[in-house]
Amino acid sequence: MGFLEKLDAAATKNNSLVCVGLDTDATKIPPHLLTESNPVLAFNKRIIDSTADLVQAYKLNLAFYEALGSTGYETMKRTLEVIPNEIPVIGDAKRGDIGNTASLYAKALFDDLGFDAVTLSPYMGYDSIEPFLRYEERGVFVLVLTSNSGSRDFQYLKSGDEELYIHVARKVVEWNDRKNCGMVVGATHPQELQTIRSIAGRIPILVPGLGAQGGDVESSVQAGIDEAGMRAIFNSSRAILFASSERDYGERAREKTLEFRNEINTFRQTVKA
Amino acid sequence: MGFLEKLDAAATKNNSLVCVGLDTDATKIPPHLLTESNPVLAFNKRIIDSTADLVQAYKLNLAFYEALGSTGYETMKRTLEVIPNEIPVIGDAKRGDIGNTASLYAKALFDDLGFDAVTLSPYMGYDSIEPFLRYEERGVFVLVLTSNSGSRDFQYLKSGDEELYIHVARKVVEWNDRKNCGMVVGATHPQELQTIRSIAGRIPILVPGLGAQGGDVESSVQAGIDEAGMRAIFNSSRAILFASSERDYGERAREKTLEFRNEINTFRQTVKA
Repeated sequence: MGFLEKLDAAATKNNSLVCVGLDTDATKIPPHLLTESNPVLAFNKRIIDSTADLVQAYKLNLAFYEALGSTGYETMKRTLEVIPNEIPVIGDAKRGDIGNTASLYAKALFDDLGFDAVTLSPYMGYDSIEPFLRYEERGVFVLVLTSNSGSRDFQYLKSGDEELYIHVARKVVEWNDRKNCGMVVGATHPQELQTIRSIAGRIPILVPGLGAQGGDVESSVQAGIDEAGMRAIFNSSRAILFASSERDYGERAREKTLEFRNEINTFRQTVKA
Repeated sequence: MGFLEKLDAAATKNNSLVCVGLDTDATKIPPHLLTESNPVLAFNKRIIDSTADLVQAYKLNLAFYEALGSTGYETMKRTLEVIPNEIPVIGDAKRGDIGNTASLYAKALFDDLGFDAVTLSPYMGYDSIEPFLRYEERGVFVLVLTSNSGSRDFQYLKSGDEELYIHVARKVVEWNDRKNCGMVVGATHPQELQTIRSIAGRIPILVPGLGAQGGDVESSVQAGIDEAGMRAIFNSSRAILFASSERDYGERAREKTLEFRNEINTFRQTVKA
């Protein structure tokens, strides 16, 4: 089953466009877990058990695991094993390197770790993306417009009549022959998200930046979903993971996920013009 | 000692602008090493022993180590321990992520692995770079113009009178208050390298793409060095590492490095206009 089918199936089964970002900061997990042999893994397991029937996808930002040193790789791998097979998992790696090196990253992320999809940086162009696209059953989300303030430095530079991020979005559409491309667009830019959706057609868009980073749910949902009310992946990390620092963190994470799912679904009802 | 001082000291002591790229492809190392407990580490040690008095720096591309799975981190860490303290080591990571995540990558690369410098992608702008710049004693090489064919996709887009890569180079100059910035410019673009050097002043430029990727040594050296004939870092990986697939790979790597150093030094003599 290809990435898109897996994504759609999970969204339908769980009636959800929520992605829980397992950006597990080892310094923020409930203190009672510190006696576990692998506290981050124990934490992730509980979060996954508490939310797996409410999400469309999970996302792991690799930085949080690389910061754990040599145990990080193992923790990431075992976290992926805990996630039910029918839920797609995105490796938020933002990699980008020349062809032969990109192939090695693709091998590490797809073959060894087993991610269903990854995020990549577009700066180095097609041959840095293509080795990932060759994995037809996996998804490749290219950074188009990011949620941070630094997005203003280069992404908005105008070339011809259009900003760099629009050029990137158009290239991603070109690169989509195998129907396995996606885009990343920060929730802090709802108007631009709408423009990008109009270029993207039914290409899935990963939307980080709701919650802690200040993106607005209503406008992001209305701008981000496709004509069928699907193919938008709204990520939330800290607000769900660290809803409680006590023993009830699993239940509290579940409540927050449910709330987020329902809020998104309210705005999904609106039929697109 | 800051990164620049360390770089200059190594360049002076070894009379060299060579960087050996320890991009150790586990499938290409001499077969007799496969009986070692860690073949890649054994290979790296021999290459380092054979070349450490001939180089200005080493560079490790993280993809080659991530492709080794859970042993990759340990292999990378132990390789860094083998490199003599006075030779700077660049972590070719090409990372780029939002602020709080960038801090974690900086921690992993600088604190845990102990790289003297890293390479980063500019797409996400200042706040994705700044957490690295805070490490005043380390170097931060930003991708400006890359050696691959995909560099044509976005890096040459003109905004105003100037291409994106020029905009990036100018920003790096702005970000250099702590004197710890660097740039990455592929050897496949010698004319552009000259323009970038004129913008960069004495900021160090890492130049990959000589040899296997087809860059020309003479024009790259003349375009890349600064007014003092320094601050350019010419990387070679495959041509040195895999000069022989037999037991003499250390000696052959040494010969290739010496040849490369001398060739570069010939063209360094030319006084810049």
